[in-house]
Parts: sequence; structure tokens; C-alpha cells
Amino acid sequence: MTTDQPGPATWLAALAATLQGVELDVSAAGLEAHGHDESGQHHAWPEAVVYAQTEADIVAVLAFASRHRVPVTPYAVGSSLEGHVVPLHGGISLDVSRMTRILEIVPESGYAVVEPGVTYPELNRQARRHGLHFAVDPGAEASLGGMAATGASGTAAVRYGTMHDNVLTLRVALMNGEVIEVGSLARKSSAGYDLKNLFVGSEGTLGVFTRLAVRLHPLPSAVASVQVGFCSIQEATAASLLVLASGLHPERLELVDTESIRAVNRWRGTALPGGPTLWIELSGRDTADLEGGLKLARELLVESGGTLIGEARSEAERTELWAARHGAFYAIRAMYPGHHGRTTDLCVPIGRLAEAISGTLAILDRLKLDAPLLGHVGDGNFHVYLHADPSDAGRLAALDVASAEMVTLALSLGGTCSGEHGVGAGKRSYMRAQHGPALEVMRGVKTLFDPHGLLNPGKILPD
Amino acid sequence: MTTDQPGPATWLAALAATLQGVELDVSAAGLEAHGHDESGQHHAWPEAVVYAQTEADIVAVLAFASRHRVPVTPYAVGSSLEGHVVPLHGGISLDVSRMTRILEIVPESGYAVVEPGVTYPELNRQARRHGLHFAVDPGAEASLGGMAATGASGTAAVRYGTMHDNVLTLRVALMNGEVIEVGSLARKSSAGYDLKNLFVGSEGTLGVFTRLAVRLHPLPSAVASVQVGFCSIQEATAASLLVLASGLHPERLELVDTESIRAVNRWRGTALPGGPTLWIELSGRDTADLEGGLKLARELLVESGGTLIGEARSEAERTELWAARHGAFYAIRAMYPGHHGRTTDLCVPIGRLAEAISGTLAILDRLKLDAPLLGHVGDGNFHVYLHADPSDAGRLAALDVASAEMVTLALSLGGTCSGEHGVGAGKRSYMRAQHGPALEVMRGVKTLFDPHGLLNPGKILPD
Repeated sequence: MTTDQPGPATWLAALAATLQGVELDVSAAGLEAHGHDESGQHHAWPEAVVYAQTEADIVAVLAFASRHRVPVTPYAVGSSLEGHVVPLHGGISLDVSRMTRILEIVPESGYAVVEPGVTYPELNRQARRHGLHFAVDPGAEASLGGMAATGASGTAAVRYGTMHDNVLTLRVALMNGEVIEVGSLARKSSAGYDLKNLFVGSEGTLGVFTRLAVRLHPLPSAVASVQVGFCSIQEATAASLLVLASGLHPERLELVDTESIRAVNRWRGTALPGGPTLWIELSGRDTADLEGGLKLARELLVESGGTLIGEARSEAERTELWAARHGAFYAIRAMYPGHHGRTTDLCVPIGRLAEAISGTLAILDRLKLDAPLLGHVGDGNFHVYLHADPSDAGRLAALDVASAEMVTLALSLGGTCSGEHGVGAGKRSYMRAQHGPALEVMRGVKTLFDPHGLLNPGKILPD
Repeated sequence: MTTDQPGPATWLAALAATLQGVELDVSAAGLEAHGHDESGQHHAWPEAVVYAQTEADIVAVLAFASRHRVPVTPYAVGSSLEGHVVPLHGGISLDVSRMTRILEIVPESGYAVVEPGVTYPELNRQARRHGLHFAVDPGAEASLGGMAATGASGTAAVRYGTMHDNVLTLRVALMNGEVIEVGSLARKSSAGYDLKNLFVGSEGTLGVFTRLAVRLHPLPSAVASVQVGFCSIQEATAASLLVLASGLHPERLELVDTESIRAVNRWRGTALPGGPTLWIELSGRDTADLEGGLKLARELLVESGGTLIGEARSEAERTELWAARHGAFYAIRAMYPGHHGRTTDLCVPIGRLAEAISGTLAILDRLKLDAPLLGHVGDGNFHVYLHADPSDAGRLAALDVASAEMVTLALSLGGTCSGEHGVGAGKRSYMRAQHGPALEVMRGVKTLFDPHGLLNPGKILPD
């Protein structure tokens, strides 16, 4: 990565001259807004924000950056959690949030073609009219371009997979001036190297997405959700494994711990019973099929020690039932106002989940940290929200220790430091331990696409 | 790609001296056996066959090849259909078919760790004891290493995906002497560039797999298959789309045309009604669930003009019902003894499948070629078996024309020239049309991993 780019004074005027008609923002408010992400963990201002409206704008910015050796950090809505959009080395924040056209919805083939600034809730509003939905839901009003860049997933990955499974094609502007199209609109392809999946999860370090085609799935005919309380997290995870092995194929399978329930109750003014809680959503081809699935699910969950807390069938009821789970992250943050926070993102083979959670709780216990836990147990992925008063240096240091120990634990269980949030700036230090010599191969790939290290420098690869 | 390697006389003795204790075969029979694949389309002998038994053997062969600039073509069981295993530039055929250890089956996490020479039927025999199955079934007794290398799929991809979805991790020996491990045993990972999917489908041109972890799925509790005849292929594909949109989530959804049925009847001595035929396999969490699904499926299929030919529930009955579909490729080849044959592998967005099939039939008609058609309609993927008497130069030339026109058709519909067989030597000439400027990026990737062009030269990338 190069960091010895010229000072902005030497290139800002040239940028303005090059990008005639493209909005350029150098106001303090604009730079500040592009200087952090939702996690608030990392802060750095760009020297300029460019609001791209078209692919040509993106190509022009990359050509300029290449010529003038200026770093470029793509930005859409800023909902990343590991500092992905923070321009750590300054330069240009390339904001694609105005590229919000849904170019095509093709119901008979089950896909949509969108610009990178389209958010997934907006796509779902449009897709629903065709009886379809886009299944990846990372929370926040995330953009599809950003979600593809981080390899995002969410609560429905247990059924529909992650962005790797749901992005069909990408148009990508490269630092060499080319725009390439990778992937296929067909459900599968064995024609050449899989560049699509190389770009999904590349966090804006290899190229900038100008357009993407994503899968749309038929909306299930009948859906119901069940909320079940358990006495221990171990019991809840064991119940999850039973559900997964049963052939029920849940739409979602989520876990929230006692501490998170407390946060939700405080935030929403509810009185949910405190204790580890599972949310399960099932679908069926019709009501009878759904009821059959629900019956089996209830049996399995009660056999596993669960207590039925709630059940929801209509969309309004389900939204209410899920509100606690979907709002948990915000509720948790609200419980610790002013605290520095960071979210872990361990993901382990599903059979090691109980160990990963026990080990995580042991680490928290030993370091005397309290940290709510929630996660996508159907994928073996869970988060704890580590937090500390910024004035408490000892506790802040303990967060680093906890974070590192948890990653070591996950790797020892065959897992990964990030199931869905990505590496960004926050998890770079774990890449060597996770990938070993494959890390040097990743560096080679980076250099192939971005020889001068100008695309989102300071992300994914450790120095 | 370099082809100016030294003659074998200069390196064979050195190879034998380097690989003490590793079996080396330079017999005509051994070289001939490694000089073609199942398609018989391409022929070239290696100068030597090395039977690797361990990862260390593979590393030693690559180090030797790198030092002496000798091409290396990986080989397992030779069931590829596009000449993948044919050593077009001579050199070493690196045979991993003796690396057949199943190192680990981990039922609670749903995966197995295997050596590359393990075949998928053998893995299934072992997995079944744990109530699990490996879901990718390309036909033949294919090896898992070869299947990962070609990005194979088969009849169950509509439900379980392809090798991209079912390979979790790969250990890969590289030309630079390193062995790297890519992917994750966790169900998902957003930690760094997705090198795993870059290697899946790379056809032995970037590295050689020494070990892989693959997903195992729970065996469905209840399974049944239905065979349904239609008056036209159009009707049959429309029925397929209806089934896919219904929430039935079939385990398999396959199509065979009249000509293929004729071949099967002749080959197996059966009397199946001649006409386009769909095979559908459904699963359920229990018998009642399955019967509900079957009822809906029958209704949809009959509404679409289908006539029930057969239904099977027990494993023996299902094996018999599916024998016609699973044996179709061999039956078709047997119908044209001595003919030169090649299999197309178009895959298009599912909503364009009817057009792709009509267009294909129109091309065949115009060129006066008869070619049986069959395929994985649930994925938008189908094959026609083009064939000609080798002494009929005009007809042989027509096969090339037909093949190229069909690829042009698939690309115009947003599809790919290969859904599952891979590129090998046979489809290299279509890569430029399919990938445009992304082809140069693929070349860059190739050079990064294999700067001297020694790994399976003559495959994937056109000269």
C-alpha cells in the first residue's frame, strides 16, 4: 500500500476540472459524514467526496486516482461495522449512494439488475409486487453494492445463503480503466475462473461495482414464526441443531441471550421473559404444510427444554414478534450510551457452536466484561457486543484482549473471525492467523488489480 | 503458455531420481490411458505418469516441473468431458487416483474431509451410515478432486447447488512451492478474498488440490419420484417453471427428450412411452409432508398437460425409475457406435430456457443434425449430444457450426457456454465472446499462480 500520495492541494483543482458536472463536496460536513461508519470505531476524513451518478463517473474517478496516485474509498450508505468505508489514507470518498436505479426486475428468471446504491429494503418493496423477495437482510438500510462488497448475510442466510450465493453478476470498474462484467445470469456456470466470488467480499479493494444482478426468490406462500425461551444457551443451541437436522429448512433461526433481552425490554418498553431465546421462522407451500412443520418444530423445541413465548402468522404479527430480534443490536447499543463498542463476528462449524459460545462466555467472565450475545445460530455465526467507557483505559485494553482471544478460539474450532461483517480495518490483524501462507496469495491478487494500492487502502490485508 | 519445454529425454531420468519411492509410469499403456478423457474428443500422451500417494508427492512433482519447465496435468479418474485431463503439451500426468482416503466425517457439522481421488459414490457409501449424503452427482464415478476442479454439478444442483456451494475448504499445492488452505469449515466467511471459489472450477490450471472438505446434508426422511410425459418440450419446460415457483423445492427436476427415450429403450430393453419426459424427485420431513408435496406436484404437472408415467417411493423403485435418466448419456452414446460425439452444456436464466431449447432445435433442424437432448431444467442447463460418423467430413464440420451457434444463442439469452462440464480444451474458443475484457483479468490470475504456464496448459484460456 502506498501512502505517499501528494497532498490534496496539488490534485483537488485538477479533480474538479476533470469531473465537470459531477458533484464534488469538500465541505467539512461532507468530509465528516464520509469519515466514519456505523460502528464509529475508525475515523479519517477524505479530502474530497465525489457523488457518482453513472458508471462513467466511477470510471473517471478511478482514472484520475490512478493518474494522480490518489486513494479512493467507495462509500454507499456507511452501514459497515469494521470501518470499511473510512478513508484511512485520505483521498477521495467515492459515494455511489445516488446510483439508486432498479434497472430491471425479471420475475420469470428470478433476478433484478440494480445500481450499487439501491438498498435491499427498497429492492424488496419493488420485488414484492412480483411475488418475489431478495433474501439477504444484514439489518440497517444497507446498499446492495456495499453488501456485495462485504459479503454480507443476515437472518435468512440459513435458508438462502449470503451475498456470495445471491449476487449473480457484477459490473466492476477496475484501476486499469476497464469495466468488466463477471458472473452469469444463469443459475450456474463452469466457464472460466470465478471472478464474481472474488469480487464479492473484496471490500472495494479490487474494483468498484457499477451494477449488479441479484437473485430474487418466490415469496413463500405461508409463513409463521415461533419464539421460544430456554434456560441456557447450551440448551438453545442444542435445540437449533435438532431443528436443522430435522428437514424443517427454517427461513430464519436466531438466538438472543438474557442480556440482549434485557436491552430490548428497556429499549422497546416490553416485558419479554428474560432468558436465552430462539426465534424460528418456517414456511410452507400452503397452510397445511406450514402447520405440519410448526407442529414438528414445537415438539422438537419443547423436547429440548424450550418454553413457547409467542407465535405469529400474519405479517403484522410476525413483524411484532421479530421486532425484538431485529432491533436487538440498536437496543444493545442504546444500553451503553457513550461507550466505545465493537461487535465480534465469529462463525464456526455448526457442531462446534456450543463450544464457541461457552468459550466466548468464559473469556468474558475471566476478563470481567459484560457483553450481550446474539446470532445466527443456523449458520454457526454469533456476535457479542464488546463495549467500554472510553475513559476506562483498562477496560478498553481488555476489549482488544477479548477480541483476539475469541478469534483464536474460533480458528481453533475450524471457524472464521468474520462470518458476515467483513474484515475492514477492524479485523486485519487476524488475517495472518486465519489464512497463513494464503495471505501472500491474497496480496498477489490485490497487486494484480491495484498495483499502486490506491483502492480502499488499509483494509483486509495487514501491512 | 510456454510450450518450448525441453524434450523428455532431458528430464525423465531426473524425475525418476527426484521421486524416489513414488510410482512412475512411462509404459505405452500407462501413457495412452492418461492421454484422453471420457469424451474422447482430445488426444495427447504425457511423457510420464506419476502416481501421487501423498501431498508431499504432489509438491515434489510441482517443484520438479517448475525447475525443469515441464508441463503438469492433474488426473484422477478421467471422466471429464472437455479434455480437461488430456496433457495437450505433454509433460507429466499427475495421477491422484490413489489418494482415496476419507480422512474425517464430521456428522454434527455436516462435512467430510477427503483426499482428491475419493469418488463421490464412495463418499456417499460412507456418509450414509451417518444419515448424511454428498449431494453433487455428475454421473460417472467422478472423483471429488476432479469435480472441484471442473465446478461440477448434476441432477441435485437445483436443491443443493454445485461444487462451488459444496466445497468448504481446499488444500492447494502451488507452483511456487507453497501449500495453502483456502475456504472455511464454517458455513460462511467474510474474512478476505474468496480464493476457494477461485480454485473451484480452475481445472488444474492454478494449483493442484491435495485435500478438500465438502458439505454433507442430512438424508431426507421421505423421498418419492414421479415420471411424467409431455407432448412437447415447451410444455415440459413450462411445467418445470411452475413446479419451481410453487415452493415445492424439488430434490431433482430433469428432462429427457423423445430421441433420448428411444435410446434408453433400446439400451435397456424397456418400453417407456416416447415423448419429452420429466423426472421430479420430492422430499418431505415425514410421509404426510411428502404426500402433500406429491399431490401438489401431480396437480401442477397434469394442469400443464403432463401424463403420469410412473411413481416410486422405496429406494429400489426410485433407482429403477431414475435408471432411464441416469443412464441416458450412455444409452445415447451407444446408439451411435463409432461416432465422434460432443456434448453441449448451455445454461441460461431459467425464464429463457424455453427459448434456448427452441433455438437449439432450430439450429439442429437447419443443419440437418439429429441430437438427443436432456438436461437439468431446474437450473436452466441442458445438453444435446452432437455426433457424426468420423468419415463424414461435412457432418463433422456441421458439429462445429452447431456448437458455436448454440453458444452464441445462450450468450444472447444471458447464459453461459458451460453450466457444469467446464471449459477444458473444448470450449476455450468461446471464452472471449463470453467474458469480453474479463478474459484478460483471467489471464492475469493465471500468470499470478503459474507464471510459466506449466499447469494444465491449453485449457480454459484461448491462446
